[in-house]
Amino acid sequence: MRSILLLACSAAGLFAADDVLTRVAAHADHFGAISRQIWETPELGFHENKSSSLLQQELKANGFAVKADVAGMPTAFTAEWGSGKPVIGIMGEFDALPGLSQKSEPMQAFVQEGAPGHGCGHNLLGSASALAVVAIKEEMQARGIKGTIRYYGTPAEEGGGGKIYMIHAGLMKDVDAMLEWHPGSTNSVNLGSMLANNGGLFRFYGVAAHAAAAPARGRSALDGVMIMLHAVEMLREHVPQETRIHYVITNGGSAANIVPAFAEVNIIARHPDALILNGIWDRIVKCAQAGALASETRMEFEQGTNYANRLPNDALAEVLSRAMHKAGGYQYSAEEQAFADTLRKSLQDVAPGPGPETVNTDKSTSVGMASSDAGDVSWNVPTGGFNAATFVPGVAAHTWQAAACAGNSIGRKGMLVAARTLSLAAIDLFQNPAEVKAARESFEKRLAGRKWTTRIAPDSKPRLNYAVR
Amino acid sequence: MRSILLLACSAAGLFAADDVLTRVAAHADHFGAISRQIWETPELGFHENKSSSLLQQELKANGFAVKADVAGMPTAFTAEWGSGKPVIGIMGEFDALPGLSQKSEPMQAFVQEGAPGHGCGHNLLGSASALAVVAIKEEMQARGIKGTIRYYGTPAEEGGGGKIYMIHAGLMKDVDAMLEWHPGSTNSVNLGSMLANNGGLFRFYGVAAHAAAAPARGRSALDGVMIMLHAVEMLREHVPQETRIHYVITNGGSAANIVPAFAEVNIIARHPDALILNGIWDRIVKCAQAGALASETRMEFEQGTNYANRLPNDALAEVLSRAMHKAGGYQYSAEEQAFADTLRKSLQDVAPGPGPETVNTDKSTSVGMASSDAGDVSWNVPTGGFNAATFVPGVAAHTWQAAACAGNSIGRKGMLVAARTLSLAAIDLFQNPAEVKAARESFEKRLAGRKWTTRIAPDSKPRLNYAVR
Amino acid sequence: MRSILLLACSAAGLFAADDVLTRVAAHADHFGAISRQIWETPELGFHENKSSSLLQQELKANGFAVKADVAGMPTAFTAEWGSGKPVIGIMGEFDALPGLSQKSEPMQAFVQEGAPGHGCGHNLLGSASALAVVAIKEEMQARGIKGTIRYYGTPAEEGGGGKIYMIHAGLMKDVDAMLEWHPGSTNSVNLGSMLANNGGLFRFYGVAAHAAAAPARGRSALDGVMIMLHAVEMLREHVPQETRIHYVITNGGSAANIVPAFAEVNIIARHPDALILNGIWDRIVKCAQAGALASETRMEFEQGTNYANRLPNDALAEVLSRAMHKAGGYQYSAEEQAFADTLRKSLQDVAPGPGPETVNTDKSTSVGMASSDAGDVSWNVPTGGFNAATFVPGVAAHTWQAAACAGNSIGRKGMLVAARTLSLAAIDLFQNPAEVKAARESFEKRLAGRKWTTRIAPDSKPRLNYAVR
Amino acid sequence: MRSILLLACSAAGLFAADDVLTRVAAHADHFGAISRQIWETPELGFHENKSSSLLQQELKANGFAVKADVAGMPTAFTAEWGSGKPVIGIMGEFDALPGLSQKSEPMQAFVQEGAPGHGCGHNLLGSASALAVVAIKEEMQARGIKGTIRYYGTPAEEGGGGKIYMIHAGLMKDVDAMLEWHPGSTNSVNLGSMLANNGGLFRFYGVAAHAAAAPARGRSALDGVMIMLHAVEMLREHVPQETRIHYVITNGGSAANIVPAFAEVNIIARHPDALILNGIWDRIVKCAQAGALASETRMEFEQGTNYANRLPNDALAEVLSRAMHKAGGYQYSAEEQAFADTLRKSLQDVAPGPGPETVNTDKSTSVGMASSDAGDVSWNVPTGGFNAATFVPGVAAHTWQAAACAGNSIGRKGMLVAARTLSLAAIDLFQNPAEVKAARESFEKRLAGRKWTTRIAPDSKPRLNYAVR
Repeated sequence: MRSILLLACSAAGLFAADDVLTRVAAHADHFGAISRQIWETPELGFHENKSSSLLQQELKANGFAVKADVAGMPTAFTAEWGSGKPVIGIMGEFDALPGLSQKSEPMQAFVQEGAPGHGCGHNLLGSASALAVVAIKEEMQARGIKGTIRYYGTPAEEGGGGKIYMIHAGLMKDVDAMLEWHPGSTNSVNLGSMLANNGGLFRFYGVAAHAAAAPARGRSALDGVMIMLHAVEMLREHVPQETRIHYVITNGGSAANIVPAFAEVNIIARHPDALILNGIWDRIVKCAQAGALASETRMEFEQGTNYANRLPNDALAEVLSRAMHKAGGYQYSAEEQAFADTLRKSLQDVAPGPGPETVNTDKSTSVGMASSDAGDVSWNVPTGGFNAATFVPGVAAHTWQAAACAGNSIGRKGMLVAARTLSLAAIDLFQNPAEVKAARESFEKRLAGRKWTTRIAPDSKPRLNYAVR
Repeated sequence: MRSILLLACSAAGLFAADDVLTRVAAHADHFGAISRQIWETPELGFHENKSSSLLQQELKANGFAVKADVAGMPTAFTAEWGSGKPVIGIMGEFDALPGLSQKSEPMQAFVQEGAPGHGCGHNLLGSASALAVVAIKEEMQARGIKGTIRYYGTPAEEGGGGKIYMIHAGLMKDVDAMLEWHPGSTNSVNLGSMLANNGGLFRFYGVAAHAAAAPARGRSALDGVMIMLHAVEMLREHVPQETRIHYVITNGGSAANIVPAFAEVNIIARHPDALILNGIWDRIVKCAQAGALASETRMEFEQGTNYANRLPNDALAEVLSRAMHKAGGYQYSAEEQAFADTLRKSLQDVAPGPGPETVNTDKSTSVGMASSDAGDVSWNVPTGGFNAATFVPGVAAHTWQAAACAGNSIGRKGMLVAARTLSLAAIDLFQNPAEVKAARESFEKRLAGRKWTTRIAPDSKPRLNYAVR
Repeated sequence: MRSILLLACSAAGLFAADDVLTRVAAHADHFGAISRQIWETPELGFHENKSSSLLQQELKANGFAVKADVAGMPTAFTAEWGSGKPVIGIMGEFDALPGLSQKSEPMQAFVQEGAPGHGCGHNLLGSASALAVVAIKEEMQARGIKGTIRYYGTPAEEGGGGKIYMIHAGLMKDVDAMLEWHPGSTNSVNLGSMLANNGGLFRFYGVAAHAAAAPARGRSALDGVMIMLHAVEMLREHVPQETRIHYVITNGGSAANIVPAFAEVNIIARHPDALILNGIWDRIVKCAQAGALASETRMEFEQGTNYANRLPNDALAEVLSRAMHKAGGYQYSAEEQAFADTLRKSLQDVAPGPGPETVNTDKSTSVGMASSDAGDVSWNVPTGGFNAATFVPGVAAHTWQAAACAGNSIGRKGMLVAARTLSLAAIDLFQNPAEVKAARESFEKRLAGRKWTTRIAPDSKPRLNYAVR
Repeated sequence: MRSILLLACSAAGLFAADDVLTRVAAHADHFGAISRQIWETPELGFHENKSSSLLQQELKANGFAVKADVAGMPTAFTAEWGSGKPVIGIMGEFDALPGLSQKSEPMQAFVQEGAPGHGCGHNLLGSASALAVVAIKEEMQARGIKGTIRYYGTPAEEGGGGKIYMIHAGLMKDVDAMLEWHPGSTNSVNLGSMLANNGGLFRFYGVAAHAAAAPARGRSALDGVMIMLHAVEMLREHVPQETRIHYVITNGGSAANIVPAFAEVNIIARHPDALILNGIWDRIVKCAQAGALASETRMEFEQGTNYANRLPNDALAEVLSRAMHKAGGYQYSAEEQAFADTLRKSLQDVAPGPGPETVNTDKSTSVGMASSDAGDVSWNVPTGGFNAATFVPGVAAHTWQAAACAGNSIGRKGMLVAARTLSLAAIDLFQNPAEVKAARESFEKRLAGRKWTTRIAPDSKPRLNYAVR
């Protein structure tokens, strides 16, 4: 852990006055090790039993009151310390991705082929947020700061939408400001959004018949799929150009000589605005209904992931920008630089972007193409977010390169940038009620009288096995 | 008229015993001239004013009681003589086809380019049937035969469905046996059927928008058409193989830079059985509804032609077969042969089939690809039909070659085969109640408990301008 | 084996004069037991190791010269006795079908779920043909009949096309008449044909891209499939109505958020005439090429099953009809009747047809919807075929009901009808050179100067693992 | 002409020092009257005989050397004065739009229904540019300014692409800076672009056949169109989101009972970058080829309009901005205000935007959805353009409202803003070689080494009758 000590030293000069950073540094090695432990036992969405337990146990050990198994999800939990207003929340994720098993090496190398891996760096995400709340709590305790700091252990971000069920369960209602971060290839705060998305399985049920002897007796479920998809293709011209619609045919019939009695398509739509997306989705459903109507088949829909876009929060972006400038970036050690150089060779046509020593806090409003249930949170409570440089510049999430970085010291250094930024921002908010108020105002302004809606029904059960089917 | 005299002579030897044939022969030249007159003033469906008047006038002059302007159609009429049972009906048509203007010459030559012409020989059809009823009436009168002979002047067979409105008006209810014939290239009686057909215009109404500036605001009517037609194409696999479905896009949008607010498709479906066709048509309608549903456009349907298949009548086929054998065929004169030889050169890849001297009365059950409202009559009353050789062997209906034959002596000789056959068969039926009863039984057997249905609503008005739009 | 003894007795009275039938009876139990043994170890196409060995061993033991592992197929063999002309061939099949595991009981009951089963009765097919050649050989030997009797052990009829490779290898060139039979639900000889078929996998290769972030960089393999299939649907209107085209999408992309880099469709086309089918197939290939062209993907085709229709042989149908009338049908025992009655309850809306005591030898020319590589044989040498009632009336091939019958005494009684018919017909042919000549003439007449073609290249290797992928 | 005098007075105070503006004012009434004369005789593209003659005659009378009938277009011309460098070009258009006949009244009122009208204000465009070059020439003469001022009389901007043929003919090669303007609803200079577009007719030729009797003999041209368009729809996902593709089916078959032997689609594609559009168009052509391939029809393409996007010129935008600020806007008279108020009532849901007194010269870079052959000019020589407020705020081009404004004093006041701006800018350029050099540099920078391409072949003849078919 030489590199982390080195970092702590170099950081010391910059913000010695901030005790909370000293506290982060004190726990850095320990939570770095926890992140590595989670990385070594990658668990898919809603099955993060070890990862969740480990984090709960650490927070309990640090004096947090933990509520486990909340909102119908065995791996969801909250952990809080303090009482009363304001309530500052920090979110942590810890689920892995299927098929991304990777050693912490700069070339593709499975730990176990086909097994899950932390290609989105959620091992760092959950651990840095936990490290942050521990440091914040110590600082609050030390200085007698009033209020509640609360950690949200949010499972199954990768498609399961754990946060949505926590919203439905009322677990976020009293939050004044929610902070979140995500592993990335730069240290950056901006006002960018993400795409809202919605998806699921349209299943068509027809009537089988021998395709040579009696095709007229059959009603082809595949015909239903194809008519639907033809209509969807024609829809593309008549939706806003920022829309994305994409699909795969997950079942296209069983045998060529039988009229298919079953067929299935998995379709996802996205748009930068969740409410506009809702209208587009209604039209996709009409295409599916049309497919069933014309082919005389029956159509059923199984709701999949539905995430809102992220409503940026201008006030919290300011708070986080200041915090990140204070938190600072980091330098690669010679060893890390060699790792990064080797890894970069596997990236084609990718501009590297700024390095980990840089902090980027422009207020640009680009729309990222990713989607997250953090978006849904941002429609419910004032939410501020940022990225920390846990991946080598140019590395995209959901790749083996990301998984490799998430398991080594580069990931752990990036995770410290996140923990420092979160800690500084939270303490800032606790001490400045005006900022908390501004965050609420920014929230209301972006909401502009609109209301969050989701296609995940309030009384629906989490699809606990969505990731392992 | 040399050829017709010749024919009368040759015929005399064959069936001198049959007075009714002598009567046919006596009127042959006159009604031949009438057929030519109608041929010279070709009139489209529901606009056969001169043709209908001329026939009415002739029948009136021969003592028939004429009811003009029946069933909401100015050119429809009935003309009857006698009273009481049995009631024998004979149908006559007289409408022309658009664009088939043709001189009575063996090479393509317009009388007037683009004008209508008698490419289906209905000038002969209406005239031969009129000639027949006149001869029958004279024979009935002479012999004191009881019963009613009735001529049906049925307009707009080419798509207008005049007979259907006459059925709806109850004008055929009391008929014991209906006889009909059609110009063709052979003299033949068989048990063949025809295809039932149904068709019309599906119109889609969307929302126009500038296709470059605001395509998302538009709802494309052409999308509606294309989704419908894609679904129709998929339907083909799942209907009986004898089905035919064909269409043209009659309006595919007005300008490429505007999202089409209107689009239209003209579609026809056919099947050898009208009731099965009904079920298929319902599915086509679903395809159209699906097109509207998926494209968020509105769909309207304008009913077009809907003709039932012909239910063969086994007993009447026997009666007609005997009659046609007695009636006999005819020979070409040298001049006619030369005409036929020249005409044949314009026919490619067409087997000529038997000549006009032949009479074919097998009981084969081939399904012709044509459709006629005579089919609807056959579902309502016992109906027997046949073809007479008015066209040179190998000539198909709806061609300039057919129009050319319909205007010359070949057509008129063929028309006499028809008139003789009809006369003999009707007299046969009047004199043999058992045959009338057998016709009824054959009818019931083929009907097999089923009921005629039509998509032309009983209270709908004939589309009097369908042919001139 | 009570029922079989019973049968042998009852048969004895009918055709005692025919020694060859006595010989069949003598081996009946033994080959019945062999059929049961094959039924108990169902093996998929090209993997019929036990089944093929067992039959080879029996034929060897009966004095036949066996050539194993012929034409590149380990389970293909020939077994012959005698020498010189004429050469009479009898074909035997022995492959099972996937997923049709079934006990010999009149209700659905797996031996092992998902395992193969003899749902097409090939255990009987191969065994009856073997029984026949043994009886024929004994009869030839006894009477000093000249010529060659040859058994063709033809593997993988269910899609693998073993016979085609045997034709390519020249193994059938010298055959004067080929006899074959197939298990069915009636005893019948007719001039019916079967559909020629052709099929295979069209694979499309595109360029993957993130479907939300960079869809314009992707080239969708699924688009290739869908454009191809849309074109195929439009083709339906413009091929002869007897054509069948059916498909399933065997790979429709891997994940909805990735532009599919791979997609695959399995498509089969059929028509009563192999040469017309060839032309239709060329047009399907054009549709696939169009899909690749328009989507900028690459298309590859893997040839699957390609079977010709069966050319009926009028002379051999006569020979077989006479033989089958002599061979006679059979009666169910009380036990078998009970089995049949129970089984019938599982068949819905199926007319049972005539029972096993009946022999049907009309010369009707219906086109069966099945396809077989026996069709290819019939384009190469005079081939006569028939069905024997091994299944309860109304039972279709490729069902659990067929598999159940194939394993019990009903199947074995039906198999004896086949063995008797084959034996009588072969002896007839050996003794009547005129009939052999007539078979050749019938063959030439049906061929009408045309030549067999196949899409299975002469130098291609059998797809030995086609059934186990 | 009261209002124009009023304007001249009010303007006098603002820029008395600028003699060129005095010169513009001196000719204002005369060229206003010319614009009205052209408005009263609206002529379609390439048929602007009177309009072109009138402008040529005026320029000749003012001492310009006119070359008529250039580049194969009878109504194209150039008119120049002076000699040597720099060469400053000013473009004028004068073609009308079909169907936009409109009186100069604030409610829809045809002069002649269905006749053309100046719905794009080109009567003003050509006249203001002519007025400008006359004033510039007088100023050059008065001050002894060196260089060449050249008017480009460019016909058929509305789809005919007159400028492209002038480029091909080399008529613009020596231009140092080209100035152009367009009637609009605001006075504005910006760096906005326009969409490049390309379009034309894809014609499919198949084989007709009776759709009921012999559909298998037909090859449907409409199938070709539909397969092509299905492929085009699938293309949408895989082109940049700014792309537009839109089409109408201009011929979808002639009669529903005949397999269509001919079908036609008119398709247009657009993109902000002409070179990217080229690549997209190649893919559309592949879709058309795929349609022909799969349907076994023949495809032909007739090139239609192909316009490049406009390359903004930063230096000329500066020059024009300064000039327009000097030129100033104008006020409505009471009468004009009343006209404007009435007209506005016919506009629904349209934000009016700033009034004619305002001058907008931000450097925003919005992409307009219109397309023009001025875009092609901008890829060949440094080209600066702007809008003048000839239409009531909120009025869009190609509407009756625009045609109404183009014929009255509002249009003529707006035209003077244009003439003043052009005059000031041209004199500025003549006197400042550095600005001419900067214009060239801006041009090279935007070109970035790329080269103009067009699908209008250099040796192709203008489609002189494109507008009157």
